[in-house]
Amino acid sequence: MQRDVSPLERARTGYRPRLPRALESTTATGLEPGDPTSAVRDAEAVRDRFPRTFGRPTLRVGPGATSGARALTVGVVLSGGQAPGGHNVIAGLFDAVAASGDGARLHGFLGGPKGVFTGDAVVLDAKTIERFRNTGGFDMIRSGRDKIETAEQLAACRETCTRLALDGLVVVGGDDSNTNAAVLAEHFAEHDMATAVVGVPKTIDGDLKAGPVEASFGFDTATRVYAALVGNICRDARSAAKYWHFIRLMGRSASHVTLEVALQTRANVTLIGEEIREQGATLDEITNRVAEAVRRRYAAGRSYGVCLVPEGLIEFIPEMGRLIAELNDILAGAGADDPATRLGAESRALFEGLPPAIREQLLLDRDSHGNVLVSQIDTELLLTGKVAQRLDEWKRAGKFDGSFKTQNHFFGYEGRCAAPTDFDADYTYGLGRFAAALIAGGHSGYMSALSGLAADSADWTPVGVPLTSLMQIETRKGKQVPVIAKALVRTDAEPFSTFAAARERWALEDEYLYPGAIQYFGPDEVRGARTRTLQLESGVRGGGS
Amino acid sequence: MQRDVSPLERARTGYRPRLPRALESTTATGLEPGDPTSAVRDAEAVRDRFPRTFGRPTLRVGPGATSGARALTVGVVLSGGQAPGGHNVIAGLFDAVAASGDGARLHGFLGGPKGVFTGDAVVLDAKTIERFRNTGGFDMIRSGRDKIETAEQLAACRETCTRLALDGLVVVGGDDSNTNAAVLAEHFAEHDMATAVVGVPKTIDGDLKAGPVEASFGFDTATRVYAALVGNICRDARSAAKYWHFIRLMGRSASHVTLEVALQTRANVTLIGEEIREQGATLDEITNRVAEAVRRRYAAGRSYGVCLVPEGLIEFIPEMGRLIAELNDILAGAGADDPATRLGAESRALFEGLPPAIREQLLLDRDSHGNVLVSQIDTELLLTGKVAQRLDEWKRAGKFDGSFKTQNHFFGYEGRCAAPTDFDADYTYGLGRFAAALIAGGHSGYMSALSGLAADSADWTPVGVPLTSLMQIETRKGKQVPVIAKALVRTDAEPFSTFAAARERWALEDEYLYPGAIQYFGPDEVRGARTRTLQLESGVRGGGS
Repeated sequence: MQRDVSPLERARTGYRPRLPRALESTTATGLEPGDPTSAVRDAEAVRDRFPRTFGRPTLRVGPGATSGARALTVGVVLSGGQAPGGHNVIAGLFDAVAASGDGARLHGFLGGPKGVFTGDAVVLDAKTIERFRNTGGFDMIRSGRDKIETAEQLAACRETCTRLALDGLVVVGGDDSNTNAAVLAEHFAEHDMATAVVGVPKTIDGDLKAGPVEASFGFDTATRVYAALVGNICRDARSAAKYWHFIRLMGRSASHVTLEVALQTRANVTLIGEEIREQGATLDEITNRVAEAVRRRYAAGRSYGVCLVPEGLIEFIPEMGRLIAELNDILAGAGADDPATRLGAESRALFEGLPPAIREQLLLDRDSHGNVLVSQIDTELLLTGKVAQRLDEWKRAGKFDGSFKTQNHFFGYEGRCAAPTDFDADYTYGLGRFAAALIAGGHSGYMSALSGLAADSADWTPVGVPLTSLMQIETRKGKQVPVIAKALVRTDAEPFSTFAAARERWALEDEYLYPGAIQYFGPDEVRGARTRTLQLESGVRGGGS
Repeated sequence: MQRDVSPLERARTGYRPRLPRALESTTATGLEPGDPTSAVRDAEAVRDRFPRTFGRPTLRVGPGATSGARALTVGVVLSGGQAPGGHNVIAGLFDAVAASGDGARLHGFLGGPKGVFTGDAVVLDAKTIERFRNTGGFDMIRSGRDKIETAEQLAACRETCTRLALDGLVVVGGDDSNTNAAVLAEHFAEHDMATAVVGVPKTIDGDLKAGPVEASFGFDTATRVYAALVGNICRDARSAAKYWHFIRLMGRSASHVTLEVALQTRANVTLIGEEIREQGATLDEITNRVAEAVRRRYAAGRSYGVCLVPEGLIEFIPEMGRLIAELNDILAGAGADDPATRLGAESRALFEGLPPAIREQLLLDRDSHGNVLVSQIDTELLLTGKVAQRLDEWKRAGKFDGSFKTQNHFFGYEGRCAAPTDFDADYTYGLGRFAAALIAGGHSGYMSALSGLAADSADWTPVGVPLTSLMQIETRKGKQVPVIAKALVRTDAEPFSTFAAARERWALEDEYLYPGAIQYFGPDEVRGARTRTLQLESGVRGGGS
């Protein structure tokens, strides 16, 4: 089927991602090992769980790298939420596999990991790949949130990989999916499978990074989509001089997206979940901070502003966490007519101070286990409700005489499937190419990584990173398990401290930046800039923050 | 103050809008009159109200056009909601005024029409203008929603214009603001003022157009911002295959924005207010249409989709209009304990079938006159609530066995202050330039227009359009008054019929287009395309719809 495409999609299909020099002309089977690796923490426990794949060395492309000698058969699966660039991982993989020899083949598993254990796959041909180059979305083979966990599922995966005679299986996913890839690699090693399992770091949340893995793909594009919108809203706020806009941004476990958008736009008030947790801040204190910014701006003649809130804010507030845990316990018990009356004194006071709509969401929305559906709570409504209450109190006390009119927004879905920026298009294409190189070398349990991302893409360094080296022990569902650690915002690192040093000024003045729409053509500085997070983490200052 | 700007804003500041050839080297005082004009309807009544300014001829640039001979002094005011390109109207005006001679001056009135009658203005200098070229927003001089209505306000405007010795006053606004400009022009004529009043057609809603005024500025940019987001969400819907996304789009009185976004993205279901009003469709019928699309897509293996809803939907549904009118009457009366019980039978049945959250919004949210605050009603929630009810009924009746999970969005504020596309940047700059030409010729009560917009900007034709020629009599607040008619979506015109001919297919299949972000560089077809509405209204077919 010839699909009609938009002019921009047509123009972008012809874009040729720039490859790191190290990957230019080879599938690089001759990768050079560095020193053996350990784990982020809890090395012994991780080794116990991954006896066969633990401790392997990182791998780099050396001068002796040569083209792969055999035609590869590879499978690829997309796992979890969409992120811009997924199709280019597949395109990079396809080109490398196709170049490996006659009879090479790339299988795409449909609908996520379930496609692997049910064996639901299609052969990806050049024509299909061509239609999806540099496009957003995961619609080529779709994705899914299943995990490969049970003995039956693991066995079924072995069966699929054996039946398709896969040299490699590429798992494109976030921290959980890559943990799952490590489990699969260990399981395959235990069963002497010839299929190398290789992970690719994907998530718009930006919370999968450690050591040579400097960024997950999709973060660049998604934050640019959000920053463009937030910048437009900052300009609208300043033009209309009438509303406070509260904007919730996707990212439940970590606040990287919110921090990056703050750095790109200099919105007036930004809440960072990790700081709030570290401070043990109460909802009351957070409310005061925002209300105080509203009051001070009003006093300076500015009855408008923009406040950024990470989606996961509630879970970062310790007392809200306790309230939710208590509610879950109470709701698990039978016949709780009015659960609120059974809360402890502190939680009850907190609960009763919440805006009515939020109280309702806490009591009514349930997940399949009967727990409070935290992700469905409209954090920005919680905040505007609380701040409005506080300002009313201040008004009665003569501390504030202004107005507080709000508009709420949530940005998430509009960024996950945007067409990748040049950065993400190049990055993902390179990750796919290098994943093929790892497979050609028979290296299983590795993550395909490119380092030095702040530099020009030609200078990026491919690194094979053992998945176990990214792990530590965490408690999940009451069990101690080795997992790839989520990278949270570090309040002692450059991105946060740059923000923290400027936020007082941003709160009071209008120092908005208007990043504008993602550009795929035009001057380098417009088209090729890196995220502020990546720049600051790489020690690149300047850029105006 | 040197403001820090984003790389894209810096790059765009240097963009030089392309001028229509007719405006290239002249402020064109020698405009050639065509035939006298009348009004859209009710010519006599309009003439009665505008005896001095009615019936003037349209004006075009003729071969005898010459440069203005005197240095102009002009005032400019932005009125109503923000629209991309406002700053370029001012820049075009500034450049033409500055070129008119030594001592020329442009005053910017602050905060909208109120700035005119309070005399709150600043002199706009070259340095200020430079910072705002091709930027979005109205933050240069801000805007406001006041009207110039009372005798005192009119007199104060005369006073301001006389004090500043204005040759012209440019009013940048929508239908109401331009009606107000016509009133001012008539008033100034009555008082033999030397200040020519000239209007500029602005509104992202796209509902100010008639005859030579083919489009209001801002519509192009805003719809592209929304279409990019809606396209991303279509791609996400198809990739995740899990949610129905309901997207409310700005535009309360007319559905042009929603129709344009539908044409640009081919979302599955789009509701057009004007069609619903023409059909006299009930909420129940609309619910059935959407639910039927959900059911049919599910049967075809697609448990996802995208539905576009114009912000003003509720007001287009006749029975909802009656319900709201009844509620307003009841609420105006004293001591209504439970207003719903006092509704007529039909309205009461309708009310009781509404989702609880919507019932609450209808009863609780009030404007300053105590009326239901229709604009605050979450139309998309009304619709998802009703559709979910219907699907549940069908489920019980064995007609549907699928799931219906929804995500809601509202796009409006993020488009009003986006940086203008090349089209809007060129269009507004030209409108500003031509407004100066009208003033140089002493032509008051005119709208600055450029015709032939579907063609290359070099070929656009400047036309001075008498404001009264755009008028008809309407009932406003119980009075018969001449106003500039709002242009609604015409169900017998090309944009709608193109949509209507394809919508069955779009509903069932995935024929999504992904327009992507606005581009300011790159190939013409990516950067310079016109809206589908403009193309189709100009008889340009093709483009893939």
